[in-house]
Amino acid sequence: MREAVGLAFENVRSGGGGPFGAVVVRGGDVIGRGVNGVTASDDPTAHAEIVAIRAACRSLGSFQLRDCEMYASCEPCPMCLGAIYWARLRCYYYAGTRSDAARAGFDDSYIYDEIAKPAEQRAIPGSRVVLAEAGQVFDEWIRSGAKTPY
Amino acid sequence: MREAVGLAFENVRSGGGGPFGAVVVRGGDVIGRGVNGVTASDDPTAHAEIVAIRAACRSLGSFQLRDCEMYASCEPCPMCLGAIYWARLRCYYYAGTRSDAARAGFDDSYIYDEIAKPAEQRAIPGSRVVLAEAGQVFDEWIRSGAKTPY
Repeated sequence: MREAVGLAFENVRSGGGGPFGAVVVRGGDVIGRGVNGVTASDDPTAHAEIVAIRAACRSLGSFQLRDCEMYASCEPCPMCLGAIYWARLRCYYYAGTRSDAARAGFDDSYIYDEIAKPAEQRAIPGSRVVLAEAGQVFDEWIRSGAKTPY
Repeated sequence: MREAVGLAFENVRSGGGGPFGAVVVRGGDVIGRGVNGVTASDDPTAHAEIVAIRAACRSLGSFQLRDCEMYASCEPCPMCLGAIYWARLRCYYYAGTRSDAARAGFDDSYIYDEIAKPAEQRAIPGSRVVLAEAGQVFDEWIRSGAKTPY
């Protein structure tokens, strides 16, 4: 955890981006590190946790991190929590909270509140377009012999 | 929307990955396209929506997509919904639903249910480690003159 928080300090001091760092650990070894690179890389998805997960997957040559855990300098936002689930991490630890992040102007807590609402009632509304093909593509996936399930 | 769903079909047929496609549109022009590349690129975050947002940001040279909307072949998962918020899209449209995705074995609906629980009660539990520096890094960010706020 000290390494994750240390990465966050370094990122602020170097002007690299937001005050966030994360590491992915497997069997006591750090296999992926990340800092917030949103503004540096023009990528709103470049949160420390996402960067660390992608780095760890590259280092293992795998799209899953089943025996791994994450240490994040701050509580993961919903995007990063979703990524933790898709990566199938074992568990995660965090130090700062979504309230700390809110105090510094970050939307983590706000997005948690928004996700709990029905899609059409959110500040960024989601609307369904009914299209038969949208269901059929899943049927094609289920029937496909070429797929790698995940 | 037909383009987003068409990308999803192409991705299944080419063996590229999961049955998902997305496009980001600005003023009627498609400025970013994405298909699911999780297994092809060993990247659990390479959902169609994330890939499309990253592509659109590259094409605009910006980390925000304020005047843009997304068309996604299926309802965005919590990770992708979080990314839509961080990218500050105007709104999004989807065709398939989280139930369609669940029927094909994808965890979208499950992850929505998990996110609503307290961190320590989730299947992938999150535990807080109290560390004074974790709050101090936000103070340093607030004081920093070199930052690009977002």
